[in-house]
Amino acid sequence: MFRKGIVFTGSGGQGVITASIIMAEAAALYGGINAVQAQAYGPEARGGATRADVILSDEVIRYPKVIKPHVLVCLTQLAYDKYIHLIRPGGTLLTDIFHVRQLQQADARTFNLDMYREVMDKIGQPIVFNICVLGALLGLDELVKPEHILKVLETKVPKGMIETNKQALELGLDLARKAKG
Amino acid sequence: MFRKGIVFTGSGGQGVITASIIMAEAAALYGGINAVQAQAYGPEARGGATRADVILSDEVIRYPKVIKPHVLVCLTQLAYDKYIHLIRPGGTLLTDIFHVRQLQQADARTFNLDMYREVMDKIGQPIVFNICVLGALLGLDELVKPEHILKVLETKVPKGMIETNKQALELGLDLARKAKG
Repeated sequence: MFRKGIVFTGSGGQGVITASIIMAEAAALYGGINAVQAQAYGPEARGGATRADVILSDEVIRYPKVIKPHVLVCLTQLAYDKYIHLIRPGGTLLTDIFHVRQLQQADARTFNLDMYREVMDKIGQPIVFNICVLGALLGLDELVKPEHILKVLETKVPKGMIETNKQALELGLDLARKAKG
Repeated sequence: MFRKGIVFTGSGGQGVITASIIMAEAAALYGGINAVQAQAYGPEARGGATRADVILSDEVIRYPKVIKPHVLVCLTQLAYDKYIHLIRPGGTLLTDIFHVRQLQQADARTFNLDMYREVMDKIGQPIVFNICVLGALLGLDELVKPEHILKVLETKVPKGMIETNKQALELGLDLARKAKG
């Protein structure tokens, strides 16, 4: 049985929810596995940290919330501080250096990558930061094929922005591969 | 007659449109002047640069779009490259150093402030970047009173986030005052 829980966390405007939707669609529409995507609105989301959950499985998914994520993404310090305790022992933690400055001890493969800065240096468009994050995630753990992410992007992104999104995805993949060594 | 055109530009997720709405509401609801706020959706907005216009006037405002802004805010390189030609000669240009790297010659008071980095260093929450930008803008040119911005924020922001927004506004005011010397 294959089952992975991924939790994306960060702040409004960083594209956390969009990233989770793109991942779930890529898995379900093109990867041939079951995917559920969910996020909380209301009090939980009003403290300044956004959270979106994705579950990928080859079986039916009955409960849409991830309890102990195999993969946790934290794009702000606040989100990190709030959600780091969730991570499954031995899981994969992906954070952004520019936004998460203080890391605690955690029983996880930890990758604090310089994603936002690289996006600004090489692409110059903050809107594709979340796509770079997705790329990095897939570079660390091929949960979904990058080409399936691209297929979803083609249905969601204006034509003139496809190339920029592709660049961001590849930048993330590269950063993760280099970090893995 | 008092009349000022302000154009906010940047990328999705930076809070450009929200900043313009907050400014217009502060002026109209608490500042006792007329304000119009507008943005384009559709092809114009799909090239990766978001634009929102505000006009403040003590007379009736008949046309909601700013032709030659007195104040231009550019929060990405793409937005800067696309909109810098608009600025009114002698106008005020506010950009963010981390996101706008290459400035051209322009007949404008130019302030390229380190707003995003300061927000991350001092507050750690990217969602209030746009409020820091608003603060900087008011520090350069008191178009609207900071306390009127705070009054609007109180109606829009969850209670637990008011203090963080206030910090961001003050950070922007400080950065602008220091830059003005």
